[in-house]
Amino acid sequence: LAWNNTVIGRKRPRTPGVASLDAHFELPRHLVESVSDALRAGDTGQVHDIVAPLHFSQIADLIERLEPEHRRQLVIAERDHLPPQFLNELDRSLRREVVKAIGRKRFAKALAELDTGDAVDLIEDVKRKKRQEVLDLILAPQRAPIVAALAYPRDSAGRLMHPEVVAIPTAWSVGATIDYLRDSDDLPNEFYAIFVVDAQNRPIGALPLDRVMRAKRPVVVDDIMEVEHLKPIPAKIDQEHVGHLFQDLDLVSAPVVDDDGRLVGTIMVDDIIDVIEEEAEEDFLHLAGVSDSDVFLPAIATARQRLRWLVVTLINTIIASLVISQFEATIQQVVALAVLMPIVAAMGGNAGMQVVTVTVRALATKEITAGNTLRVVWKEVRVGFINGIVFALIMGTLAALWFGAALLGCVLAAAMMLNMLWSGIAGTLIPLVVHRLGGDPAIAAGPFLTTTTDVLGFFLFLGLATVVLI
Amino acid sequence: LAWNNTVIGRKRPRTPGVASLDAHFELPRHLVESVSDALRAGDTGQVHDIVAPLHFSQIADLIERLEPEHRRQLVIAERDHLPPQFLNELDRSLRREVVKAIGRKRFAKALAELDTGDAVDLIEDVKRKKRQEVLDLILAPQRAPIVAALAYPRDSAGRLMHPEVVAIPTAWSVGATIDYLRDSDDLPNEFYAIFVVDAQNRPIGALPLDRVMRAKRPVVVDDIMEVEHLKPIPAKIDQEHVGHLFQDLDLVSAPVVDDDGRLVGTIMVDDIIDVIEEEAEEDFLHLAGVSDSDVFLPAIATARQRLRWLVVTLINTIIASLVISQFEATIQQVVALAVLMPIVAAMGGNAGMQVVTVTVRALATKEITAGNTLRVVWKEVRVGFINGIVFALIMGTLAALWFGAALLGCVLAAAMMLNMLWSGIAGTLIPLVVHRLGGDPAIAAGPFLTTTTDVLGFFLFLGLATVVLI
Repeated sequence: LAWNNTVIGRKRPRTPGVASLDAHFELPRHLVESVSDALRAGDTGQVHDIVAPLHFSQIADLIERLEPEHRRQLVIAERDHLPPQFLNELDRSLRREVVKAIGRKRFAKALAELDTGDAVDLIEDVKRKKRQEVLDLILAPQRAPIVAALAYPRDSAGRLMHPEVVAIPTAWSVGATIDYLRDSDDLPNEFYAIFVVDAQNRPIGALPLDRVMRAKRPVVVDDIMEVEHLKPIPAKIDQEHVGHLFQDLDLVSAPVVDDDGRLVGTIMVDDIIDVIEEEAEEDFLHLAGVSDSDVFLPAIATARQRLRWLVVTLINTIIASLVISQFEATIQQVVALAVLMPIVAAMGGNAGMQVVTVTVRALATKEITAGNTLRVVWKEVRVGFINGIVFALIMGTLAALWFGAALLGCVLAAAMMLNMLWSGIAGTLIPLVVHRLGGDPAIAAGPFLTTTTDVLGFFLFLGLATVVLI
Repeated sequence: LAWNNTVIGRKRPRTPGVASLDAHFELPRHLVESVSDALRAGDTGQVHDIVAPLHFSQIADLIERLEPEHRRQLVIAERDHLPPQFLNELDRSLRREVVKAIGRKRFAKALAELDTGDAVDLIEDVKRKKRQEVLDLILAPQRAPIVAALAYPRDSAGRLMHPEVVAIPTAWSVGATIDYLRDSDDLPNEFYAIFVVDAQNRPIGALPLDRVMRAKRPVVVDDIMEVEHLKPIPAKIDQEHVGHLFQDLDLVSAPVVDDDGRLVGTIMVDDIIDVIEEEAEEDFLHLAGVSDSDVFLPAIATARQRLRWLVVTLINTIIASLVISQFEATIQQVVALAVLMPIVAAMGGNAGMQVVTVTVRALATKEITAGNTLRVVWKEVRVGFINGIVFALIMGTLAALWFGAALLGCVLAAAMMLNMLWSGIAGTLIPLVVHRLGGDPAIAAGPFLTTTTDVLGFFLFLGLATVVLI
């Protein structure tokens, strides 16, 4: 692989309309078609001419947009020229396939060239057995930080961090610091702050670069370092917490420390963006019963991914059907019940899913904590009560008019009222309990909730009708 | 208001357990209780002692967690001491109430102290009539950039950007640049890159600060500036696009340009984090029929917010009920139909919501573009077909055994199969069409979809049963 790292001071020629001012930075559609045509014709020279000037994120885009059979062809044709960063930009569902096409040796070379965090992100997806084989192909100096990061728990700050840090003692002057930066060879590629450490290598201050540049050379670091916003992050905490920390404190970079508080790496805000989006997206997809983004997967893999949740839905609805079947005799006498019963279940289910969604999100963003749980539950009970009354009145009246039966309207209103009240209770309690038990509320809460609102809805409506109308 | 801006080089005393190494940075629960107690007792001195050492994001947290009546009391008691940044950290639903308690003059003073982007974010929520009155209270030098930003469309890059930029000509040396930074008084508070501009003030390169610091003084800017990753952003484009750009290109900062390509501001990656989360969260909430995060709103306001969607759900289910009512005679003859019909509707609805969710998210992240729309739709049709067959076989067999009626099982299987196939078509097409028409697919797609799957599910099942079984 030839690594298209930024070349300092060399102006690269730009492909017209691609890496230029184009605001959206979208891959031009004709380009995908040109590559497809060239691949179909087996014209690898043409393919290379199109792909070579692209930005790594455009290459990832291109691969995603190609037909599955063309993806492999493109990667094999260009594997000696692709910039390694495209692997990280690629949708996770396609990475394994692409890594396979690249081959183990080239993959190892890519890992060695990437930032440690990016390399770890890629090798995490490799099966444990093959992982060691790939690592063995990397030279020791590049391998060491990857292995060190892999020692931290999955999704921890330790895996996210860059082990390369710039740290200086408090006693240094601005001049000494600048000279050190000018003469030092092993600095990270990019950095926005220098950390100031004590004799035990524990971070005690941060020095944003703009502050160093604005100060005169004799100024001592101790006098200009920032202490207020310094937020050392334990390497073992979950990346989700790191994301909240960066958001809450508007951090740009933070030092990562080991159990003894010693500086072991740094996390920067751009590492956090993907974490924050991933976490939000995960909840979003899980709540609808989709385990991962699957746009680029083939139909059969997508169908299999979604099957599990649909099986759960089927079991739920069968349970609801069993409830209905207990009242077959009642329905036979008053067929209007069959017409109206989906309304009771649907209103409870939808109101409940509103509550579940808000609760799942509030748990994820830590808006709900131990301190306000009770208040949130109590509030949702009141919301369910208010909307329950509103819709019970509307629909009870409509049903009474529709079927010319006041008592039927009353039964419908009572069942709706109670089911919507229940949706407020269940909509908060189910995610809260799942969360407390250590589960993912976004996955479990939806099916549980709709089962309860369906079962309760049908039972209340048909049961009340049996008692009152028959 | 006394503004707790970072004091350079002054070490502030820390409240134990608050601004220390505590990884989660959560507000200790007892603190919320202490403040509540003090407010109840009217002991404003005690309140001040607790609140004063807090970080602005903890103050926002505290206000969010207090009982509604205490929120106002706290803000009024402390309004002369609160750091203005807490306003931006506060949940949007509470801002109006808090701004009201602070008072117009203090609010204007807060705006003047904040970064332009943050000030604009706050004043956007003020009603147009009152906005001018607040702006008039701000001194001209601080007001000008806010007014300039407000001239850009809502949610545009122009509103998001910092108008303060550091720009230098290509011909300068590193030494001249450093001297300029040392001597200049009106630099932005924080910056990570210097932009290099041509004679027309158009950005032609970027100079990450670490590069300046590593270079020797005589080096000319032109030789070390970065050209490759420079991505000027038109001020008028939507912030969502800016978010994608930063994510795709791993940008840390980017210059913002006007229609003539002249540098007018800069956007930094930490401005983008909130945009990305907001966009993801918006889709998430909208898809479940919640218009905004409402955890901190009172019950009555929340109930009102969620009412609209429930009205839509009610209309949907009434339409479905009208379909069912056409088949009352059939149901009276075969009550098993009433037992089984919710299964057909629910399986179609749930399979369809999986498709809608994936499609809405893929549209937001631009994974679906004009180039691959057809392929995505065609894929979902196949997924619907595969899962349709699987569940039609399972449930058809179960129903046949349950009611001892093979023909009933066949009718159920056929209806499920067709409805799940439809859910793949409708689940992609509805969001795509809404998106193409300029609407928000997350709001409209859900209700449309479930109406179609309910109506089609009931119609197919009961219609087929009427033809085949009666």
